[in-house]
Amino acid sequence: MQVFSFSNGMLKLLDQRKLPFSKDYIICRDYREAIHAIKDMAVRGAPAISIAGAYALAQAKQRDQDYGRAAEEILAARPTAVDLSNAVSFMLEGINAGKDPGELAKEWEESIYGKCFNLCSHGAELITENMRALTHCNTGPLAVGRHGTALGVLITAHKKGKAPFVWADETRPRFQGALTSWELLQEHIPHKVITDSSAGFLMQKQEVDLVVVGADRICKNGDFANKIGTYALAVLAKHHGIPFYVAAPTSTMDPSLETGEKIPIEKRDEREVLEPMGARAYNRDSSAMNYAFDITPADLVTGYITEEGVGKKP
Amino acid sequence: MQVFSFSNGMLKLLDQRKLPFSKDYIICRDYREAIHAIKDMAVRGAPAISIAGAYALAQAKQRDQDYGRAAEEILAARPTAVDLSNAVSFMLEGINAGKDPGELAKEWEESIYGKCFNLCSHGAELITENMRALTHCNTGPLAVGRHGTALGVLITAHKKGKAPFVWADETRPRFQGALTSWELLQEHIPHKVITDSSAGFLMQKQEVDLVVVGADRICKNGDFANKIGTYALAVLAKHHGIPFYVAAPTSTMDPSLETGEKIPIEKRDEREVLEPMGARAYNRDSSAMNYAFDITPADLVTGYITEEGVGKKP
Repeated sequence: MQVFSFSNGMLKLLDQRKLPFSKDYIICRDYREAIHAIKDMAVRGAPAISIAGAYALAQAKQRDQDYGRAAEEILAARPTAVDLSNAVSFMLEGINAGKDPGELAKEWEESIYGKCFNLCSHGAELITENMRALTHCNTGPLAVGRHGTALGVLITAHKKGKAPFVWADETRPRFQGALTSWELLQEHIPHKVITDSSAGFLMQKQEVDLVVVGADRICKNGDFANKIGTYALAVLAKHHGIPFYVAAPTSTMDPSLETGEKIPIEKRDEREVLEPMGARAYNRDSSAMNYAFDITPADLVTGYITEEGVGKKP
Repeated sequence: MQVFSFSNGMLKLLDQRKLPFSKDYIICRDYREAIHAIKDMAVRGAPAISIAGAYALAQAKQRDQDYGRAAEEILAARPTAVDLSNAVSFMLEGINAGKDPGELAKEWEESIYGKCFNLCSHGAELITENMRALTHCNTGPLAVGRHGTALGVLITAHKKGKAPFVWADETRPRFQGALTSWELLQEHIPHKVITDSSAGFLMQKQEVDLVVVGADRICKNGDFANKIGTYALAVLAKHHGIPFYVAAPTSTMDPSLETGEKIPIEKRDEREVLEPMGARAYNRDSSAMNYAFDITPADLVTGYITEEGVGKKP
């Protein structure tokens, strides 16, 4: 499944909002169209967003637009994930050194794929025969463009014959569990979707052997931001003595932040909560609080899986 | 808002599935129609189910149907909550003593209302000025027929001028948060709806002062069953040092069970998970696990709120 392609200054993106029902593509003719696709979650997953952002900046440069301003607008599209910021820094440095922007973005894309391929191989070593793993949000090949992160680890373990079973959190409010289930079906990996609040009970019933999640920003001390609900899973895993791993390429590291306290947390439209699948579930006067991410402290993490290996530190 | 009425052998029920958008009533002409309304969650909430069950059994007796068999069918409608079972025992005892079944059911209904009125008064004493309380599922007047349990405590505290703020969990997969939000709007109580998995992050951010939930069955040692997700909230509350209360009338007690291990946990149709608000979110080959309840051990409970007062033991 091709998530990205870029030619003649046009960025073509798989529209993840339409999955699993149709495989539609969006053509972004301009960096602002790419920003819109990022904001509206047509493309999602921290590494995938960084690739889309790199191509968006390439578009701005190729069109002789003010790419410094374009960089700022791109960065503001989704504030929590740092991969996007790292991609923009990489692009600006290369552009200022006179390199070709399209080639730079392609280089960023390939480096992400290489990192994720390697982290999946390292992570798969943690998966033992018939292990029952729980994951949150969608971190498969779709979330990167190829290979995936946390879900990629489980897919790789499956390819190595370890026969994992996956509990896939539905991940309210955006139901990214539908993408996870769809990717698991492609790979013929046994799994069940659960509501997010079922995870604790399954842990209590000793039906979960390991939790593995992705990340949107990892600080120097190991605190990390990820999809809302991750923190609760980490507390629950600790309470039940279940290993809790974070899988992310080093492009998700933010060496400028010592701890998680200063990670900006995106609040999204309350309608994502009040209108599940676009259908109004609440009175028109009801309101909601919709934090898109939360922060998990390092002391709840068993290990970090990156392209460099598995470590106690990020 | 009238939830129940019973006359000429007809049980009239407010259809909670249609709220908050319309106030429709269902007429149950026969105990089997009442069972269908319970199974399909037109009537829900452990105390309200017990009242519907009592009237259903009165119908069977009034029609000279095999009321022993009717009792068994009614009990099987929702296996986790014990209020229904306690109502059926009360009815059978009275019927066997030659009492009028309609009057018996009315007596059960009034006794539930009296208990819930008193538990709300006791519970409201725990609520301090401007407290930010978090609750799960719907436990307001709708869930009883009058007064409510956990949400009733917060409504009573509001009436006493304590100005609580309420975080209302949406409660996947059935979105009972929509009922909670609707009841809070009626009472002009400030609140926000959140996804279930946001509760942990709000606790971490010190935006939750107290958790109060209802119960479907409380064992002798204090272990209790409640809507799926309750157990995770209890673990999270413990982790953050936040008081965690259970509010239920003594009709929710099961003196025959020493601990929670043997509470039967209802599994419901996987489509409740896969089809949020009736719209398919998943590939047709995806499957889900849909436990409707979970079990919280007594050691995570700060106190039990019943009509008899607030205690460390149920």
